[in-house]
Amino acid sequence: MKVVVLLSGGLDSVTVLHHMAATEQVVAALSFDYGAKHNARELPCAADQCRLLRIQNQIVPLTFLAETFKSDLLKTGGKIPDGHYEEQSMKKTVVPFRNGIFLSLAAGYAESVEAEAVAIAAHAGDHAIYPDCRENFFNPMAQAIEAGTYAKIQLLRPFVAMDKTSIVRRGTELKVNYARTWSCYKGGLLHCGTCGTCIERREAFLNSCIPDPTPYVNTPPLPSKPAPGT
Amino acid sequence: MKVVVLLSGGLDSVTVLHHMAATEQVVAALSFDYGAKHNARELPCAADQCRLLRIQNQIVPLTFLAETFKSDLLKTGGKIPDGHYEEQSMKKTVVPFRNGIFLSLAAGYAESVEAEAVAIAAHAGDHAIYPDCRENFFNPMAQAIEAGTYAKIQLLRPFVAMDKTSIVRRGTELKVNYARTWSCYKGGLLHCGTCGTCIERREAFLNSCIPDPTPYVNTPPLPSKPAPGT
Repeated sequence: MKVVVLLSGGLDSVTVLHHMAATEQVVAALSFDYGAKHNARELPCAADQCRLLRIQNQIVPLTFLAETFKSDLLKTGGKIPDGHYEEQSMKKTVVPFRNGIFLSLAAGYAESVEAEAVAIAAHAGDHAIYPDCRENFFNPMAQAIEAGTYAKIQLLRPFVAMDKTSIVRRGTELKVNYARTWSCYKGGLLHCGTCGTCIERREAFLNSCIPDPTPYVNTPPLPSKPAPGT
Repeated sequence: MKVVVLLSGGLDSVTVLHHMAATEQVVAALSFDYGAKHNARELPCAADQCRLLRIQNQIVPLTFLAETFKSDLLKTGGKIPDGHYEEQSMKKTVVPFRNGIFLSLAAGYAESVEAEAVAIAAHAGDHAIYPDCRENFFNPMAQAIEAGTYAKIQLLRPFVAMDKTSIVRRGTELKVNYARTWSCYKGGLLHCGTCGTCIERREAFLNSCIPDPTPYVNTPPLPSKPAPGT
């Protein structure tokens, strides 16, 4: 099957890229330059992984999003908070309807290059604070993409039943070099080790008993997860 | 209700803009610069109509679409065919998943500017040859947008039960200046009068008994509509 993969350059999407490349024909990986603080760190990782697998890496510039959308994830937004994802403060890092925008562009591109599917690294650990990570978004979005394209483009979520720990294990089987992936939302020279996405990255390696190759600025003890709804 | 309107600068979307502005608070009109042959003609019409109504016109550049998508509607594509829309040749003018892409960007923008809805000029005359104009696309797309945004952004299609003739009548009630709208896919100095969208424009004025203010290059007798499926 010919597949287009959404590739941020983070741990999850890089693993999806290798996972799909192992069994399907990945015709291109799309990476989005949308004004995120960490774009300058993650896009080179996306490019490196594609070079290794000899897959075309298409960069999609989204200046409109970068200049007009409100989110602390963007360069135009406020500071990235520290602490666990579930905290209310992380809501400010949501980029409105980001998955809808990325998937729509990928679906149109897939139809243009005669691919049959689009793959995204959505997984079981994705956060309830992000409305466009929930099943009640993905299900109708998949229907809209299938109905709205001649080729009936499919939406693939191969990791939908896996958590981040299982993803790191799968990637390790596939010999993914996690030193060439980027998670930290702050986009500094090194991973901060304390923002929501760094905490999850550290947890995933710790829980999978796989050595974490990431140099962090700080590695304070991992906070316990807050109870749901707090 | 605060609404974001999709505005190409064509007859339908300009009428939707005036229709929404008459009853709701239109916070912005989004116009997309995506490499279409007629973008240089329709975008100035969109800007003019927004100036008249004192509505912000946001231009969304989509260079990725312009450079990589396959469609005869784009500058990178082949010639625009003459004749009725239903003809097989018009399929080549489809821009893959265009409505999905435009609506997704509008939904994210709407959430960013605290709007409650996105309006699109989908209407009863929209063509079965375009998969992203059908009900089985719009219904799940509306669900995905509502579920995928905090504000539960609504998708409005005020003209869904109207044909183009009724739209011209509604616009005339609203005193829309149709001389400052652009339909022709060829994007020449004047409307060609013979491509699918020019034929529909001419038919709409003729059938509504409203004088057509458009200077056309050619106005041969309007062809009869082919039977469905031909």
